[in-house]
Amino acid sequence: MRIAAVLYPRFTALDIVGPYDVLCRLPGAEWTFVAEQRGEIRTDTGRLGMTADASLDEYGQPDIVIVPGGAHDAQLENRVLLDWLAQVHEGTSTTASVCTGSVILAAAGILDGLPAVTHWLSMDQLGSFGAVPTPERVVRSGKVITAAGVSAGIDMALRLAADLAGDEFAQGIQLGIEYDPQPPFDAGSPDKAPAPIVELLRALGPSITG
Amino acid sequence: MRIAAVLYPRFTALDIVGPYDVLCRLPGAEWTFVAEQRGEIRTDTGRLGMTADASLDEYGQPDIVIVPGGAHDAQLENRVLLDWLAQVHEGTSTTASVCTGSVILAAAGILDGLPAVTHWLSMDQLGSFGAVPTPERVVRSGKVITAAGVSAGIDMALRLAADLAGDEFAQGIQLGIEYDPQPPFDAGSPDKAPAPIVELLRALGPSITG
Repeated sequence: MRIAAVLYPRFTALDIVGPYDVLCRLPGAEWTFVAEQRGEIRTDTGRLGMTADASLDEYGQPDIVIVPGGAHDAQLENRVLLDWLAQVHEGTSTTASVCTGSVILAAAGILDGLPAVTHWLSMDQLGSFGAVPTPERVVRSGKVITAAGVSAGIDMALRLAADLAGDEFAQGIQLGIEYDPQPPFDAGSPDKAPAPIVELLRALGPSITG
Repeated sequence: MRIAAVLYPRFTALDIVGPYDVLCRLPGAEWTFVAEQRGEIRTDTGRLGMTADASLDEYGQPDIVIVPGGAHDAQLENRVLLDWLAQVHEGTSTTASVCTGSVILAAAGILDGLPAVTHWLSMDQLGSFGAVPTPERVVRSGKVITAAGVSAGIDMALRLAADLAGDEFAQGIQLGIEYDPQPPFDAGSPDKAPAPIVELLRALGPSITG
């Protein structure tokens, strides 16, 4: 099971490291970080570099492709990436995104008319590229699965793990990464966070996070 | 606020990328990945490389130091790392760990007699190095804060963010990373997961995850 995780300059690390640390523990998983070119790619903060181990050109066909969010706007006209995604999507068993990675999938023409989710601040943009914005944590439309902002990739990956290897295996992974979340606040979605904080993030705009 | 995140060969990526994507958004945070030597460090699965941007020697004194877990046993006799941790701990405002990173802190003599937590499979080992194993998600002992396995680093980092910048700022970060966890199963701790799955992971041993 070949899994390609797409990196691009200024991606958000947690978007993709969440799914990585869940899915790379599946039996037979061959996880590879890919990018236009091999080598180090820096994240949105500039404070973290991760290695792309294969270029898009040389990687070939993935079974699963996953696109993280981040400073994604620069990728919405990147024909090399968009064309690669549109092409490999034809042969995947699962095409997945986390956060604003779904906007990139939509720009590649993969989400036309499909229910999908993205970071809560980017739902309008997702719709402008032809997807049907659907405010749920994880949205599945056939072989396409999209997750909400950043940390939602962990929940998506566990659902995918259950689909691929069964509920018990997914539970084993969850126990292995001790995913028993106990956030100190209940402020993780715009309908739960205090209104002034939601307004502040709206004012700062989608650039605050991927 | 200088934050040093310690990398070593075969660390677990999510242990440190969770705290990174929370704490690097704090005002004035200067996050740096450090390791014995600069350059790429591969994770426990071998499928991900992250860059250490500074060597321990050249980094100087952090305000906050964070140690992730992983294949940590090889570090328990690494005097270069242990001596560096013991030395910088004297000058930190916060010394933190995720997962089996606390066993490394304990081996450095930092947790003697202090309540602390680690991955649920490594609690006995933590005790053998002089800490007082305390089965909570996040344990604070003075300026030392330790988190349970892997994903617990996100919860720890949000608590630390609240301590450092106030509850509202921490809530803003939580909303930014849309941390509204909805795991598909309630299997993230040994007292919640089905007994056969707990036993399976016990049989596989701590090496299954960091």
